[in-house]
Amino acid sequence: MVTNATIETLLNRRSIRKFKDEAIDADTIATLETVAQHAASSQFLNDWSAIRITDPAIKAKVAEFGTQPYIATAPLLYLFIIDEHRNARIAERKGIDPSSDDFNLKTSYRFAQAQNDAVLALHAMETAAFSLGLGCVILGSPLNNINGLIELLNLPEYTYPVLGLAIGKPDQEPALKPRMPRDMQFFENTYPADADDTLATLAGFDAEVHRYYDLRQADRPVDAFSDQIATISRQDVSGKTLLDKAAAQGFQLDK
Amino acid sequence: MVTNATIETLLNRRSIRKFKDEAIDADTIATLETVAQHAASSQFLNDWSAIRITDPAIKAKVAEFGTQPYIATAPLLYLFIIDEHRNARIAERKGIDPSSDDFNLKTSYRFAQAQNDAVLALHAMETAAFSLGLGCVILGSPLNNINGLIELLNLPEYTYPVLGLAIGKPDQEPALKPRMPRDMQFFENTYPADADDTLATLAGFDAEVHRYYDLRQADRPVDAFSDQIATISRQDVSGKTLLDKAAAQGFQLDK
Repeated sequence: MVTNATIETLLNRRSIRKFKDEAIDADTIATLETVAQHAASSQFLNDWSAIRITDPAIKAKVAEFGTQPYIATAPLLYLFIIDEHRNARIAERKGIDPSSDDFNLKTSYRFAQAQNDAVLALHAMETAAFSLGLGCVILGSPLNNINGLIELLNLPEYTYPVLGLAIGKPDQEPALKPRMPRDMQFFENTYPADADDTLATLAGFDAEVHRYYDLRQADRPVDAFSDQIATISRQDVSGKTLLDKAAAQGFQLDK
Repeated sequence: MVTNATIETLLNRRSIRKFKDEAIDADTIATLETVAQHAASSQFLNDWSAIRITDPAIKAKVAEFGTQPYIATAPLLYLFIIDEHRNARIAERKGIDPSSDDFNLKTSYRFAQAQNDAVLALHAMETAAFSLGLGCVILGSPLNNINGLIELLNLPEYTYPVLGLAIGKPDQEPALKPRMPRDMQFFENTYPADADDTLATLAGFDAEVHRYYDLRQADRPVDAFSDQIATISRQDVSGKTLLDKAAAQGFQLDK
């Protein structure tokens, strides 16, 4: 393996869910936010924004939505959002009516690309934070209550929550989670016609994950990977359907 | 600003679209792919894969879909995909029928999270490549022909293309693209109630983008940002609608 400081940072990434009660200084915050802005953006639309949540009452509410108390203790907390609202206002100033049928920033394609752009920016910030010795965890759990988030953060038309990011000085040192064999995840030229070819090395990975204990649950082993997948594949996620909530925010994902 | 090698890499990121005709060695490829695998994954579902495209005929076809000839010249080319196919096969081995109504990896929530995971992995790879002095460009253009991509790469049920990534030794040195003022993209605690508050610094940014010349089009100035947004907001993207194509791949995005 080739290596350098950046690659070491990326290979040693792990989720940090316990933070020291120490604020992050303004200079570091400026750096992290500027780095996020330098990620790529599809067609230079810059169609994401992020809400920096500093109000303890709002943090507590986001933690409640996510049913993860540690979220409220994060010294630095962001919610990254799809943001075509700013672009709609800019287009309006150029005489375009966002409610018209030929305003296409509210379509499924733009929604997906804006989501990608938000994640690129978030990952740039996460990587920069880790490189500075900070700890982070990416948060999907606040999306348990998308309507609640939208109301809490006053998210306007043509915006939609994507992911949160909690950052702070780490107060835990969890073990690195195992990764699947590379040939289970990277394929050459085409997807293998025989899906079982992608699972030839699954048994070994199952055993490896079974041995892995997360610091979060040091008292019990994590399931084998296959068992986790089987369980999660039937988890009820019906409260998190996208189309109705995105439509309420003005998106037309059927287009 | 705080700095280190990783932050420098992230701040100096720019899209590279011209590559030297030199192959990337196997050790570097292994590093880049391993780094991608170390990105975070929602609920550890590992619900993405990547196709490493080495066959010149397939590269040429992807370049044709994207109408970007340079794609065919990329020494290293990936397409990152949402992959719940592998997980469906794993669940099947545990006695679960993926076609049943309580198999939830095909829902809109899982689709969105898998898309996020694919982008996190792609960005980790992009960052590692830049840190090694390689150049990259993230590719949305192959999605101009989603059905074509699905057929070309033999993408099975419960998979969906997200983004491509072209990597190689850079053979151009484009200028850094301007970024919008931070207060246009980062807000505190809530989205500003008066959207015009987010545009107070727009005029300056418009002027800055107007002055910016991309190496790709050194003979003509790029439009002001506002003009770009207005133009793109009415571009026809109707060929790229998500729902029908995702449904054909087995996803139920209305759930």
